[in-house]
Amino acid sequence: MKLDHTAKGVYAIAATPFHPDGRLDAASVDRLTDFYLGCGVTGLTILGIMGEAPKLEPEESLAITRQVVGRAAVPVVVGVSAPGFAAMRSLARNAMELGAAGVMIAPPSSLRTDEQIVTYYAQAVEAIGEDVPFVIQDYPLTLGVVMTPNVIRTIVQNHPSCVMLKHEDWPGLEKISKLRAFQAAGEMRQISILCGNGGLFLDFEMERGADGAMTGYVFPDMLVDTVRLQREGRRDEAHDLFDAHLPLIRYEQQQGVGLAVRKYVLQKRGAIASDAQRKPASGISATARAEVDYLLSRVGRYDRRARL
Amino acid sequence: MKLDHTAKGVYAIAATPFHPDGRLDAASVDRLTDFYLGCGVTGLTILGIMGEAPKLEPEESLAITRQVVGRAAVPVVVGVSAPGFAAMRSLARNAMELGAAGVMIAPPSSLRTDEQIVTYYAQAVEAIGEDVPFVIQDYPLTLGVVMTPNVIRTIVQNHPSCVMLKHEDWPGLEKISKLRAFQAAGEMRQISILCGNGGLFLDFEMERGADGAMTGYVFPDMLVDTVRLQREGRRDEAHDLFDAHLPLIRYEQQQGVGLAVRKYVLQKRGAIASDAQRKPASGISATARAEVDYLLSRVGRYDRRARL
Amino acid sequence: MKLDHTAKGVYAIAATPFHPDGRLDAASVDRLTDFYLGCGVTGLTILGIMGEAPKLEPEESLAITRQVVGRAAVPVVVGVSAPGFAAMRSLARNAMELGAAGVMIAPPSSLRTDEQIVTYYAQAVEAIGEDVPFVIQDYPLTLGVVMTPNVIRTIVQNHPSCVMLKHEDWPGLEKISKLRAFQAAGEMRQISILCGNGGLFLDFEMERGADGAMTGYVFPDMLVDTVRLQREGRRDEAHDLFDAHLPLIRYEQQQGVGLAVRKYVLQKRGAIASDAQRKPASGISATARAEVDYLLSRVGRYDRRARL
Amino acid sequence: MKLDHTAKGVYAIAATPFHPDGRLDAASVDRLTDFYLGCGVTGLTILGIMGEAPKLEPEESLAITRQVVGRAAVPVVVGVSAPGFAAMRSLARNAMELGAAGVMIAPPSSLRTDEQIVTYYAQAVEAIGEDVPFVIQDYPLTLGVVMTPNVIRTIVQNHPSCVMLKHEDWPGLEKISKLRAFQAAGEMRQISILCGNGGLFLDFEMERGADGAMTGYVFPDMLVDTVRLQREGRRDEAHDLFDAHLPLIRYEQQQGVGLAVRKYVLQKRGAIASDAQRKPASGISATARAEVDYLLSRVGRYDRRARL
Repeated sequence: MKLDHTAKGVYAIAATPFHPDGRLDAASVDRLTDFYLGCGVTGLTILGIMGEAPKLEPEESLAITRQVVGRAAVPVVVGVSAPGFAAMRSLARNAMELGAAGVMIAPPSSLRTDEQIVTYYAQAVEAIGEDVPFVIQDYPLTLGVVMTPNVIRTIVQNHPSCVMLKHEDWPGLEKISKLRAFQAAGEMRQISILCGNGGLFLDFEMERGADGAMTGYVFPDMLVDTVRLQREGRRDEAHDLFDAHLPLIRYEQQQGVGLAVRKYVLQKRGAIASDAQRKPASGISATARAEVDYLLSRVGRYDRRARL
Repeated sequence: MKLDHTAKGVYAIAATPFHPDGRLDAASVDRLTDFYLGCGVTGLTILGIMGEAPKLEPEESLAITRQVVGRAAVPVVVGVSAPGFAAMRSLARNAMELGAAGVMIAPPSSLRTDEQIVTYYAQAVEAIGEDVPFVIQDYPLTLGVVMTPNVIRTIVQNHPSCVMLKHEDWPGLEKISKLRAFQAAGEMRQISILCGNGGLFLDFEMERGADGAMTGYVFPDMLVDTVRLQREGRRDEAHDLFDAHLPLIRYEQQQGVGLAVRKYVLQKRGAIASDAQRKPASGISATARAEVDYLLSRVGRYDRRARL
Repeated sequence: MKLDHTAKGVYAIAATPFHPDGRLDAASVDRLTDFYLGCGVTGLTILGIMGEAPKLEPEESLAITRQVVGRAAVPVVVGVSAPGFAAMRSLARNAMELGAAGVMIAPPSSLRTDEQIVTYYAQAVEAIGEDVPFVIQDYPLTLGVVMTPNVIRTIVQNHPSCVMLKHEDWPGLEKISKLRAFQAAGEMRQISILCGNGGLFLDFEMERGADGAMTGYVFPDMLVDTVRLQREGRRDEAHDLFDAHLPLIRYEQQQGVGLAVRKYVLQKRGAIASDAQRKPASGISATARAEVDYLLSRVGRYDRRARL
Repeated sequence: MKLDHTAKGVYAIAATPFHPDGRLDAASVDRLTDFYLGCGVTGLTILGIMGEAPKLEPEESLAITRQVVGRAAVPVVVGVSAPGFAAMRSLARNAMELGAAGVMIAPPSSLRTDEQIVTYYAQAVEAIGEDVPFVIQDYPLTLGVVMTPNVIRTIVQNHPSCVMLKHEDWPGLEKISKLRAFQAAGEMRQISILCGNGGLFLDFEMERGADGAMTGYVFPDMLVDTVRLQREGRRDEAHDLFDAHLPLIRYEQQQGVGLAVRKYVLQKRGAIASDAQRKPASGISATARAEVDYLLSRVGRYDRRARL
């Protein structure tokens, strides 16, 4: 089951569960996978930034891939961004052999010009092989690399194996409109566009033509509903639900602190045993925990899933 | 009426009104000033980033200062950030002579180390004079300079004329707690902390010990109410009001597009004649305008001030 | 006498002389201008980064322009880079009226994509007017903006008033070859290429097709000779002379310290009365001064002009 | 034989030899090791930036370490910089077990404040263990992290296992003076300072108090001589030799191109079989090769080792 341009819905960006002492928590990997599936996601993305991928050793990355792919009944995308193409190739080939649906590649932050970005993806495709479907991660806020719609189009046109854009440019609404206009004009192949940024603009991103979300907000079930409502044309209902969660989405979107908040809530939802992060990590203070609890109680007035 | 550490409430970051052909719109400067006062703000900040200050010529900066200070019955803070200390001194001395309450200084983005930041503010104080009250602008997202609580404390302790922090670090809640803890322990002078970032975290910033907001959200009247409610201990009411506006606050917070949205809404509220920006500027598409209208209609269900 | 694409030789980047108390030293402006002319330069560039331009007030910038243009018998290029187009236009129009030969424009460091860079120069040309010849400053090391040969070609083709590239990309030898190849293939108009970076690669830049140097090395007379020798095909002699100066060129190329070294040597050469910089400035230690003296004595074994 | 603060002389930063198809060239690893030893180096540093470390897979890193440590009669420092502490610990512990003398740690480019840098090294020491001697790599030009002398002192004082600074700040001469002044005043433990930056300032760095060089210039034998001459107080001779090589040192110092130049010359010197780099890589044009040949011929007039 390979990833292709028709992908839709919600791909949860999966956290990586650790024991308090830093070891991988394999039992929680299963529990978390089941949790996401229970939320109605159409796919999973593992080993992304939120998954603390750079802190893992290669064998751990493979072990997680094996475990999640073996358990999930949905397509699994594996983050394979790496400083060198040897490691990228190795992880990508191994992941696909284990049954992954595709891989995700973020540009290294040293890239500056349009040509450098286009060339980088050409080299990456050469490394992983043209038979491996891949996702472009477009995340300037964290990665520092800015891709214009033209650059994305060039990569899409150069590489048939490019099937999806993880869209998290900020601001990015006009970018979605522009890419969809390219397609409408026959100037670009159809690709799937799933949105990140913690879901902060998902309400309007769907209206601009996105196919769904690929992000780590701790209520993937809400993302699933919002995407569905928007696809059914129930705009006001979609916004009502989304707005009820927005104070928490916004809180999670704080760089650095965000992951601590997510793991804290995932633990509260019973999806993982411990909210531990592997070092280096930023913790969450008692005050912040109380703030999150307060936010949950407020969201819970509208959405009972938040009553934890 | 000089700015001091007891400043509280809401200082609106003022837009600078232009005619469609790029000339300053002096009539709208008055209208906008009256609008802000009508919103109940306790102060005004002019010539900030949102005020398109770097696009102004020196005589224009002075003309705006003269006009706003002459009309406003509240303290006016003037942004004097400049690449060189000669221009900074010149604008600061002139602004104070015209009746400004104080000035705001952002660090140049070339600064990296703690020492460089501390030294920069020492040189700035030497340039503008120790008699001019100043505000530190702490805005890493846009300026690229990261100040630790210790660095801020050092600046505050070194310079009695430092009376306020415009707090817009992100994430920044713990920073407010830390600074207030310094004060509680007698390790730092009392300063005023007003929060920026478009107000995106104002609900919790007040609970962490902020004195109010200094930002450009187009409903300063809502910011005034939120600050008041929080100060009166009416937490749930404060969050209810804030959350009703959050979808629009979030929309405005998009870097680049944000100013276009603000000017569009200020025009709708009758505060300025034209939403024109001086070049270079990023515009607002018809789709984005419709999105803002939709957001206003939704906010308007809760807060009649948004029914435009 | 307007700047055009046939410009050749050495354009000295002029320092701006100050009195120790920070005031402009008008007498030294004349003395320095005469010094450069005596070195055989074919042009002068004022109000660049080395000229401490951002530390000047607008009226000072005009005063310097008036003075240098009035005294120099060679074309004078004026740096007009500014955060906003109003100030850029104002300085550019005024400078041309005072008799400047052209202006130089550096991209603001916020630019990232090819499109942003091309658009910026289009807006700049609209601001200053199509009748003002301009120089692109391509200096990624300091400015953080990377322009590919394609981007430079697009700017050149879009704007007939673009007549020169101040080339200081690093590494940049292949870039010169590529741009000259564009011209040879009829894909780009002819432009003048003068090289910066303190002259650190001038020996080979000439061989790659540059027309000369535009930089601030304190022996412009040596640059003049090197350019001449290379143009006459006397390769070994050019390198012999250049290599004799290289230890000092390298020393000057230290970011931050460089200007202090240059003013120190300019003072020793009698070109300015004081080596003072306007604040913020980095000084030069006694040890560094002794190192420069030692370097001068070593260069002086080969080139008597360095015996100071 | 563990690295300690008395380390002196030249530690060559070793290239990693590949076959043209990208495989590791184990035979050349031996040949290159022997070459460095024949140059008179007092130590070797492997798996640094120049060693294309991020392009290697973990087992390759260990294989190289095993091979070099097994063959070299001098201390071997292993670069263990990694995005996560798990990988750093793993490589550091394994390398020490294989007989490495110590490890080198560069700060990740996301670090900004003094506190972040100090904390990072504390976490790194916790990860690798307090028994592993380590080298701070201070290389702002490439890494983007600026460490003040105070920050370095704090790290040194906090961690007895910090024994060396790889100094490549730019400009950095005053930094060496400052650190040695700390030591003279009894404010900092003695550490070894070896200098990088391709050796571009080695002549004066030795005079400021450095203990030698740790860099990848292709004539380590020249570095050895320069260090020796300076230590013997033969200043003019040291500069004469150094200056003869400076045109090539400068050429190599071009970011990106530099490694291609180094591998090209290493191949010419017979130290490796192929100048291939693993992808992504920047190549060297025919023109550049000819320029290097010309430089070699010029250096060769003074130093016969360059007559290749």
